[in-house]
Formats: sequence, structure tokens, C-alpha cells
Amino acid sequence: MMIGSLNQTGRGNDLNDGHAYPLLIRELLASGLRTASDQNIIYADRHNASYAEFAHRVRRLANLLCHAGIGSHSVVAVMDWDSHRYLECFFAVPMLGAVLHTINFRLSAEQVLYTINHAEDDLILTHRDFLPLIESIRSRLTRPPRIVLLEDDPMEGLPDYALGEYEAMLSEASADFAPPDLDENTRATLFYTTGTTGDPKGVYYSHRQLVLHSLTVAAGLGSIPGPGGLHRDDVYMPITPLFHVHGWGFPYIATLLGLQQIYPGRYDPTKLLHLIAHHRVTFSHCVPTILAMLLAAPQAATTDLSRWRVLIGGAALPIGLAEQARAKGIDVHAAYGMSETCPFLTVADMMAPHRGRDNLPTRVATGRALPMVDVRVVDPSMHDLPPGGPVTGEVVARAPWLTEGYLKNPSASAALWEGGYLHTSDVGYIDPDGTLHITDRLKDVIKSGGEWISSLAIESVVSQVPAVTEVAAVGVPDNRWGERPVLVLCVGAAEPSAVEAAARSAICEAIQSGRLSKWASPDHIVFMPVLPKTSVGKIDKKAIRVRLAAAQ
Amino acid sequence: MMIGSLNQTGRGNDLNDGHAYPLLIRELLASGLRTASDQNIIYADRHNASYAEFAHRVRRLANLLCHAGIGSHSVVAVMDWDSHRYLECFFAVPMLGAVLHTINFRLSAEQVLYTINHAEDDLILTHRDFLPLIESIRSRLTRPPRIVLLEDDPMEGLPDYALGEYEAMLSEASADFAPPDLDENTRATLFYTTGTTGDPKGVYYSHRQLVLHSLTVAAGLGSIPGPGGLHRDDVYMPITPLFHVHGWGFPYIATLLGLQQIYPGRYDPTKLLHLIAHHRVTFSHCVPTILAMLLAAPQAATTDLSRWRVLIGGAALPIGLAEQARAKGIDVHAAYGMSETCPFLTVADMMAPHRGRDNLPTRVATGRALPMVDVRVVDPSMHDLPPGGPVTGEVVARAPWLTEGYLKNPSASAALWEGGYLHTSDVGYIDPDGTLHITDRLKDVIKSGGEWISSLAIESVVSQVPAVTEVAAVGVPDNRWGERPVLVLCVGAAEPSAVEAAARSAICEAIQSGRLSKWASPDHIVFMPVLPKTSVGKIDKKAIRVRLAAAQ
Repeated sequence: MMIGSLNQTGRGNDLNDGHAYPLLIRELLASGLRTASDQNIIYADRHNASYAEFAHRVRRLANLLCHAGIGSHSVVAVMDWDSHRYLECFFAVPMLGAVLHTINFRLSAEQVLYTINHAEDDLILTHRDFLPLIESIRSRLTRPPRIVLLEDDPMEGLPDYALGEYEAMLSEASADFAPPDLDENTRATLFYTTGTTGDPKGVYYSHRQLVLHSLTVAAGLGSIPGPGGLHRDDVYMPITPLFHVHGWGFPYIATLLGLQQIYPGRYDPTKLLHLIAHHRVTFSHCVPTILAMLLAAPQAATTDLSRWRVLIGGAALPIGLAEQARAKGIDVHAAYGMSETCPFLTVADMMAPHRGRDNLPTRVATGRALPMVDVRVVDPSMHDLPPGGPVTGEVVARAPWLTEGYLKNPSASAALWEGGYLHTSDVGYIDPDGTLHITDRLKDVIKSGGEWISSLAIESVVSQVPAVTEVAAVGVPDNRWGERPVLVLCVGAAEPSAVEAAARSAICEAIQSGRLSKWASPDHIVFMPVLPKTSVGKIDKKAIRVRLAAAQ
Repeated sequence: MMIGSLNQTGRGNDLNDGHAYPLLIRELLASGLRTASDQNIIYADRHNASYAEFAHRVRRLANLLCHAGIGSHSVVAVMDWDSHRYLECFFAVPMLGAVLHTINFRLSAEQVLYTINHAEDDLILTHRDFLPLIESIRSRLTRPPRIVLLEDDPMEGLPDYALGEYEAMLSEASADFAPPDLDENTRATLFYTTGTTGDPKGVYYSHRQLVLHSLTVAAGLGSIPGPGGLHRDDVYMPITPLFHVHGWGFPYIATLLGLQQIYPGRYDPTKLLHLIAHHRVTFSHCVPTILAMLLAAPQAATTDLSRWRVLIGGAALPIGLAEQARAKGIDVHAAYGMSETCPFLTVADMMAPHRGRDNLPTRVATGRALPMVDVRVVDPSMHDLPPGGPVTGEVVARAPWLTEGYLKNPSASAALWEGGYLHTSDVGYIDPDGTLHITDRLKDVIKSGGEWISSLAIESVVSQVPAVTEVAAVGVPDNRWGERPVLVLCVGAAEPSAVEAAARSAICEAIQSGRLSKWASPDHIVFMPVLPKTSVGKIDKKAIRVRLAAAQ
């Protein structure tokens, strides 16, 4: 009878000093097994396994990897949709002492090539959907990794360079595996983050960091009373790809707590809504655009979402989207963090008495620091700014789970940790009650006369002016003030002078009501037929600044 | 405005490597401050301070101690009833890098003398109530520590050997204090545990261990949905003395979560019931005898206890007491641990669908392992026993917060950790669903023909026989079986032969129904007018075995 052991004897093989208890990922799985060995882990209605069966498969996978030559410090990459197999890799790879590289398959082929070479992947487990991508870059891999194929319905024809197919190999592997004791600072995961410029940067986490992130987020969300937070009766489904900061760490947290887990496979609004309704999913997390996509799907109108709690991150939660979700009965709120922070730093504080339909500003604020998280807002000399605004500064943080740096990039790592705190490159302020508000990205904030003016705040006001289809506020060099704001507008076929007057009037009003600082009124308003965009479709403020400089 | 900083700049003074984030007790206080700076910490209706004011006093206390010569590795002892001042010591002493020695003032004067000398206390903060005790042993202290006096209503006449009175010294101390960065393995606390024989043994914990215990218990209890567990809307009051395993760790957990906290001072049933009702206390913990004492107090009949959740530890929760508490609407359940385990290992699993009035067996079971806790039941060769009983074995454990050993006692430390697991000296079995059941103490279990017979189980059956006032089942040497059970009874004025017949009949019935093993039927029944007791009033089975051997 399996009641919570990872193997026949339930422990590692190196227990000379039982007291020195390392914080290891194997303990997250063991904890879930002890409380929930009968609980289910479900993959898109195609696969349903108990935690006990899941642990069994993890042990087989560990042996499969061992036989493929994977050991301590090997790097094992995965390219898959959100599946139970991916979750198995979340545990088996680090439990061997190897590093799990979660490949972002949405990057360009060139970037994927760069990350595989940079990470020095030894083996890639890939869904058949990504074989064409692998094949397109294979000749340029500096040391071609071995390939294991993942697919739901194994087809004929394994590529000649593949070791084999996952399920076939798994069924041949022994389930007898005792995860070794490791140093808790052993690297467990690695993934790449991309900015608007430069090569992707590798961010990595140790066993200790992932365990501490899991325990603390579980304590922080668990301690929220009533229907909020995250508790053992929740049914969990990620809608953030597992390659994205290990699904924001929630697959580890859900396993630790022994929750029922649903992995949706490739994202499709109809399928996601079906899974939420069918499995009575109560807890998910996603970026705002995914939530908007789900709410816009035709099936949303007939799907009961009133049991669903959604934690929004990755970008600010627009108040309009929050309102729309609340109208469907969804318990939506924001959280804040980044790839370099594992990811969580703060969570919107959904404690009574603030809870309820009418506290949208609390729901969309980036929230209060989790336990053990030291978040500060500082000036460029690292002095704390007074709480409450209106003065804003850079958000910096310490916590037990922030990345040590960027892989093989000491100068970027040193800049990240300058002054002993991790620099988020976000700008904001902290309320007297401890709530963090993000007002801008550091590179976009307009530094004028010692004040920091939020480009986002200006854009938010002007975006509501009729006929404005796109808007950007950027800082341009100014001899007296350092920088001054310039507003760039797209107005389609409307008359620019009329829109300019309306925009100036909206800004005036916002300044008078205190929503904008008095320095925020733009010196110039410039019209463009269309705004330049980055490769992922975001407005490219760097390109706008270059254009404005050229036009002077 | 104070929003969550421990000092003007909010951090320690040694941040060359911000990424290496040690797990320190200062972070528990900082976390509580960030979420609950306005929340209250109340002392017996005499003192009420916000978390911000509390942190202010902690900083003053740290400076007070510094000026008294306390620094890294000093030992600071406290003898006090449960007060806000005691809680201030819980933080200020370890935050300095010093060790907090919580003196058990219920020990004999000789034992207190032994612990002060063994711990090498540098300073003792003591309530005036314990001055006579101090004075009685002062001449035999190997290096007389400095004394600071704690009292609610400062009286005239400070002893000439005292440094001063706490509140007066606090008011003169600066509140400007930046807790230093420490190694997370720095010793934070020390206290003594007593067995039936030998000197008290010193048990100690590091910052890392106390932080991990706090985070994990918070995650484990927080993840319980609905009205169970421990959440941020709970009002906390300990009814376990703060010297007892740091109040079972809950003062640290309550502070981490920012709960309202009530410290009751000296225990008195009337006062405790008043505080529970007046402050609408929702969460407490105590030993069974304290709960029985409260329920027996006249005021209990008129006090609404239906919001009160009580976690019972220190001894088995009798099902009759649990039933009595449930009749008052109290959400009572057991937990399990010991001085050497910080203390928690398992908590009765109060998850739906088991919850409710009718699941008393779940409430009184010692429960399921907390996350990160590896609990096993093993035979003497450290092999796991099959789950589900009836075969029982010793309970051994690993977790990130178990004491490294006994202070200055390497042989006892080695025995505690023999085979890489901490030996609890408790006997039990684990259900297939992961629930741990404790059946006996190792030293009391009767080892007969390779089977372990629970003395507690026999006693439980016989204690229900009319006229039996006291009962003990002990093992006596037997050439064939190793040991065989002998039953020792006190029956007052009743006719022994009639009681013996009734007892044998009750045992028979219990064997037939499977509640006792078939080896449990005692070879002999012996009558004594009264059973020998230990100094703390427990039945002394060791003395009984000596008497039985002498009588043979």
C-alpha cells in the first residue's frame, strides 16, 4: 500500500546526518502524496492519474533519464503544451540533481537555437508539434542534444535522431528509484527571459528557492480566510504556460498541497472553458490578455464561472477587464512579480473587509508583499521614498527565492543586484497600508526636474479621449528639466487639432483632480499614422524616441 | 509613517550579497508588520499595542540588551507569565544574535538552578513573582547573571543585584536599531526538557528552523479551507506557557501572519474565559488538562465558546474531553509533536468531508504529517512497518526543524538521531490514509513474543470498569515471551475479585472486537491501594515495575 513514499523505503540514500534536512523538490511531491495519494492529476480529459500513480511515473521517468545518461548537473529541456508529462519533468529532472530547462517555444527559431546552445542542453523532451522547429535549427546546435518525443497519440515514424517515444520508454523503465539527498542550493530550473533588445537571458533557481517560494506562497494565500486565497479544496488549472517561470510556481504549490490539478494541453478558449466547467476548476492564473480572450469566447456566455478565482500577473490588470470578470462572478485579482523573482513578490490583498464586488482598485493593485518579501521603493541612491506617493521610485526587493543572476552574464547579474537588492526596473510607490502600486517601467518613466512622471498614467488619461486609437507618452531630452513628456497620438481620420484640444483638456482635468502630477502636461503633441511596435506587438517607445530625436 | 520597516531604513547593515537571503526571525516580525501594522497585541487587558508600537518596543529592548552587554551568542533567560514583554523577548533576543533561554518556572528550584548553570545564562529577565526562587538559588549560580525585573505595577524596592526594571529601562533606550544579518543557522532559542530520570536536557533551535517551522505550519493550517485551520481573521491566544517549546511556536506564526494576539498573563480559568469571550478569541492551543479545567470552571456554562478553535497537544486528547468540548461548540482537535520537534510533526486532518460533530476519532487522532515532515513507523532495525496496524513500531521523523541534539550531551544526541532519523520514543502505526496513531510510549509498551502490546490500550479498556480508580498495565520479564502484561489496579473499597472478573471480561470483549491484540490479556492482576507517581503527578510505571519485581 502506497501511502506517501517516493520509493519502496520512502527516502534517499545518503542519510548520515538526518538533522541537516535540505529543502528539496522531492519533499514537495512527498508532502502532496502524504495528504492526497488518491487525489487526481488530469490532462485535458485524456489522462487521469492519482498522486500515487503520478509519483510512480515520476520514478519511472527518473530511471528513463538515468539510462539516457542524465545525472547530476545535466541539463534537460522540455518543449510541450501544459501536460501531466511536463509536470512529471518538473519533479523527475531536479530530483536527479539535473537542471530543468523549460523552453519558450513562442520565441523565434533563432532565439530557441540561442537558448538551447547557451543552456548546453543534454536532452530535449519535445512534443511532436515542435519537431519542425527542432529540425530547422538542428544543424546549428553546438552539441546536438538527444531527443525524446512527447505525443498524445503516438504516430508511426520516429525521427532517426530521436531516442524514443516518452510513453513507450516510460513503460519499459523501472519504478524503483530513491531520489538522492542533494545540496539544497543545487540548481533545479533554468529558463530564458527576453527584453526588447539583446539576447535572451538565462534565469535559474535552486531547490531551496523553489521550496521556499512554494511554502511561502502557500502560507500567504492559505492564510486568506473564507473563499479567497488557495486552500486544499481548490481545483487547480494553470493558464500560464509551464515554460513561463515554471507556471508561476503553482504546479509545485498545488502538488505540495495535494490539490486536484487539471492540465489543459494547448490553449484553446473553448477547451479551457469546458475544462473549467467540467472539472469545477476554482483556481487559475493567467495574463490579462488570456482572461480577456476567454471572456470574449462565445461559450463564456453560457459557462458558469462563479466558482472561479483567477490570479492575474505578467502585466497590469486593467480595471475594465476586472469589472467584466466580476460581472461574470469571477473572483479576479492581481499579483506582481517577474521572471527574476520566481515569480511572486506581492499579491492583491483580498482580506475582508475589503473584499467584494466594489473594491476593484484593491483587486487591480499589485498588492502587499508576501511573507519574507522585503519590497522597497527607492531613489537612485537607494534611499527609501516616503510612502503614499506622489513621488515614485524604482521597486527593489529581497526575498529567499530571487534569482542569483543571469546565466554566464556577470555584468548583467551585478547590475540586477546593485546595492544588495534586486532591481525590478519597475517604478511605483507604496501606500501607507503597505500596498504596492506600479506606475511605469523604469525605461519608460519620464524624469523631469527631479520628479518621475508616469508615462502609463498620461496614456491612461488620453486613451479615453474619443478618436484616439493609439497613444504613447515618452520623455525627450530637455536642457532645463532633464526630460519633458511628449505625447504621440494616432487619431485615424479625425481632425488632429480637435483631438489635441480634447487631450489637453483631459490632462488638465486629471492634473486638477490629482490623478496626474502637475509636471505631466506634455510639452508637445505629435501625430503619427501608426505607432512602431516590437516583435511581440508592444508599442516600441525606444523607436518612438529615436524618431522624435530625428525629427528635431 | 511606519509601514513595515524594522528600523528607519528597514534592513540590516550587512548586505554585500543581497541574493543570499538568510531565514531570520527578524523577517517574521517584518512580515507581520507589513500586513498588519495597525493590528493589536494585547496583554490581559492591561496593555494594548499595535504591531508598529510592538516593533518599536522590540527595537528599544534590543538596545537595552546591547547596553547590558548582550551580543552575539550571549544567553538571555526569561521567567515570566505569558505577556507582551515575553513576546518582545522572543524577537529582540534572537535578532541580536543572542540565545533566548525560556526557563520553565514549574521545575523544582534545584532543576531551575541546574538549567541556569548549564545554559550559562548571561542575563535573566524575571517577573517579580519568581524573585524568591532566584534568591533561593543565587548563591549556587556558577556565574551569577544580571537580572532585569518584569512587573505590571512597578513596586518600590528593586533588589540590589538587579540592573533595573524593564519598563523604566525600555523608556530610556533608543528605538533606533537595525537588526544585523546573521547566519541562518545561528542558535536562537534554548529550553530544557525533563524526563522521569536524570537532569533536564537542553533542546535548541536555529533561526532557520524557527522560520521553516513557522512558514510550514502556516501553510499547513492555512491550506485548510473554511472555518478550520488558521487564517488572518483569527484572534490568537496561547494557553500553553511561552516557556513550553516557545508556546508551541505559535507566537512566531501569529506574528508572521499579522494576527490579533492576546497574552493572558498568569493562567486563571475565570480570566482565560473572560479574555476568550471579550476579545472573541478564535484560536488557542493547550494540553488536555487545561481544556478540562476551563470546561469545569463555573463561568464556562455562561461563556459562548462556539467561535473557539483549540488545538490540543502535549498528551493524547481523550475522546470524552473532545466530546464535552464539541457539546460547547468548540472546534477541538489534536496535534502531535514534542520538545525535540519544535514542536509540530502532525495535525489532525480537519478537511471536509470528514469535518463535523460526528468525526471525533479524526479529531483525537494525532493526525497527518505537515508538509515537509517525513514521519515513519519502524521496527528496531529501522525497517518500515506495513501501514494500518495492528503491528506497531517506534515513530521516527525528519523535518527541517528538529533539534540538532541535546546541549552539551553528545551521547544522548547520538541516540536521538540514531539511523539518521529523530527517535520520538513514541509507539504507533500509520493508517493507509496517512493518519498517525500513537498507541504508547516506547518505554511503556509491552514487548511480548515479537509483538508490541500497547499499555495505553489495555488501560483505556480497564479504566471504564466500575470501581477502578487507577490502572496501569506494565510489562514484566517472561522467559518464553520476553515480556508479558501485568495489570495493576486501585479499586478503593470495592471487592478485588469482583473487579478482577469485570476487568477480565472487559478485556476479553475488547480482544474479540479487535480493539486489543489477542496477546494483550494480562497474565496477572495485582491490586495496590495507590499507584506510585512521578514528581509531576504522572503514574510512575518504572516504580511499579520495580515493586512488581521485588514482590516476585
